[in-house]
Amino acid sequence: MNIEMIRAAAKRAEGHARRTPLLNSPFLDERADRRVWVKAECLQHTGSFKFRGAWSALSALYPAIRAKGVIAFSSGNHAQGVALAAKKHGVSAVIVMPADSPALKLANTRAYGAEVITYDRATEDRDAIGERLSEERGLTLIKPFDEPQVIAGQGTCGLEIAVQAAEQGIENADVIVCCGGGGLTSGIALALEADAPTLRVRPAEPEGFEDVARSLTSGKIERNAQLSGNICDAIITPQPGHITFPIMQRLCGSGLVVTENEALRAMAHAWNRLKIVVEPGGAVALAAALFHADKIEGDDVIVTVSGGNVDAPMFARALETLT
Amino acid sequence: MNIEMIRAAAKRAEGHARRTPLLNSPFLDERADRRVWVKAECLQHTGSFKFRGAWSALSALYPAIRAKGVIAFSSGNHAQGVALAAKKHGVSAVIVMPADSPALKLANTRAYGAEVITYDRATEDRDAIGERLSEERGLTLIKPFDEPQVIAGQGTCGLEIAVQAAEQGIENADVIVCCGGGGLTSGIALALEADAPTLRVRPAEPEGFEDVARSLTSGKIERNAQLSGNICDAIITPQPGHITFPIMQRLCGSGLVVTENEALRAMAHAWNRLKIVVEPGGAVALAAALFHADKIEGDDVIVTVSGGNVDAPMFARALETLT
Repeated sequence: MNIEMIRAAAKRAEGHARRTPLLNSPFLDERADRRVWVKAECLQHTGSFKFRGAWSALSALYPAIRAKGVIAFSSGNHAQGVALAAKKHGVSAVIVMPADSPALKLANTRAYGAEVITYDRATEDRDAIGERLSEERGLTLIKPFDEPQVIAGQGTCGLEIAVQAAEQGIENADVIVCCGGGGLTSGIALALEADAPTLRVRPAEPEGFEDVARSLTSGKIERNAQLSGNICDAIITPQPGHITFPIMQRLCGSGLVVTENEALRAMAHAWNRLKIVVEPGGAVALAAALFHADKIEGDDVIVTVSGGNVDAPMFARALETLT
Repeated sequence: MNIEMIRAAAKRAEGHARRTPLLNSPFLDERADRRVWVKAECLQHTGSFKFRGAWSALSALYPAIRAKGVIAFSSGNHAQGVALAAKKHGVSAVIVMPADSPALKLANTRAYGAEVITYDRATEDRDAIGERLSEERGLTLIKPFDEPQVIAGQGTCGLEIAVQAAEQGIENADVIVCCGGGGLTSGIALALEADAPTLRVRPAEPEGFEDVARSLTSGKIERNAQLSGNICDAIITPQPGHITFPIMQRLCGSGLVVTENEALRAMAHAWNRLKIVVEPGGAVALAAALFHADKIEGDDVIVTVSGGNVDAPMFARALETLT
């Protein structure tokens, strides 16, 4: 896992992944007491950064292997990223999803061309289903984060941040990244180590699910006590990855933790001031910048908005925080 | 008014106005029965394309004249565009706004650094107030659309569309523009005439306020029967401009007209599929592409989303159309 893999992923993604904009607003600067820059990955294809990693992984496969198709487990953004990346490569994708996934996510994953196979969370073993399908059909598993080519794809976001920060004259900044398993965080950290070493990456997580923050403090991989019961579902994973954690440990500053209400308020500010749609898990980095300014050291703060796949009732809840 | 003025405006805007992205989604393509490309001007500074024209006009003034300050009449997007452009130039801006303007728009215009002067729509004469202030303080009036340097600024959006269309291999497309007085429409039309002559600009307006569509049909400037009572307030003007209309007459195809409900549904689709926030007046071009496909000829359709300054209750109304 190194910077050359990220540069190669960026080359493979040319003309396929979007170079997302770095947005700002004087109103956010005022609230955060420094300049705030928002890397709007909600504007990436499929509405989240996950398309980068999926594209990178699929485009790196040997064509004869890729032609047999790919498989992924996901109820959310990774599913859609893999489905669209497979469609654009002209190969089939099987996505194994819980039968009780939101109807819209099932429908969207199918609409991106994937075959969706549902399972009962209570009675069926997801991994067994996946293994059987992989063997029967020769499908390649695309893991969501602990996979070098996926990390390389997410790292392309970091290469763009380095260029965009230089364009804006940003030198001393915290780069806050919404963090689940650490694919995006470690990828960006590697890219910035090479191309913008004065910027410092810091993971942001929802309160009660701060496995990465705790792992960085203790120096070993810590698990979350629970895996549900938070609106930031997109970034809740059992623990940091075995590949991602050592990278984060070497390159990242301490983790930041935000409440659900802070995530909702950050969604409302992004709607009001930047005109972008953010999901709760995609808003935690912005929430950290806006509501935990005392824990940030940089003159500037760059935050990723990692996704925008949110349903209307949850979005309405976020807008209610404005009043 | 010519293409060289637009190119000069683009040069003056480098590093100041944003190059907004051209977004798309397979879901929108399916609904519109062709590829749909969205020029997301809601992501421009101040949340609308108006910043382009304001920047162009202010940056074109002689420094000694500009230093005395500028003045504008507007209750909406032009006000915010002029206020921020003035602030970034380090000069004062006076914005004359109706006393009954929405509180948020008054607050935002002030927050961008402008001096807001309110007047009573029923008893006071806006133009008289403006004239007195201009004389007393030597302020330069920045008109909202019928002004060559403003049109040149809006035209920079068209230069970007030409480049972005070429990148995507778009050749035979209708370019639908949300149209009020015609500043953006005529600016884009001039830019595309020079840089992408196979693309054809068409104005889009709300039903009952289609003065431009009627003017293009009759061949002379027609007025709207009324000036209020539609949610697309940002693009309702009495009539096309004396500078903008001849340009539109020479270069534009026939106008498209959408209902309020179609505008709301287009806002919801943009939220759901593109993750951007659109105001009703900024959604009429997308609404035309999605709901009037039979009136469009191009293999592709490019639409401007001209602004995203909408309040939460109106946005909630738009999201309700999804259910």
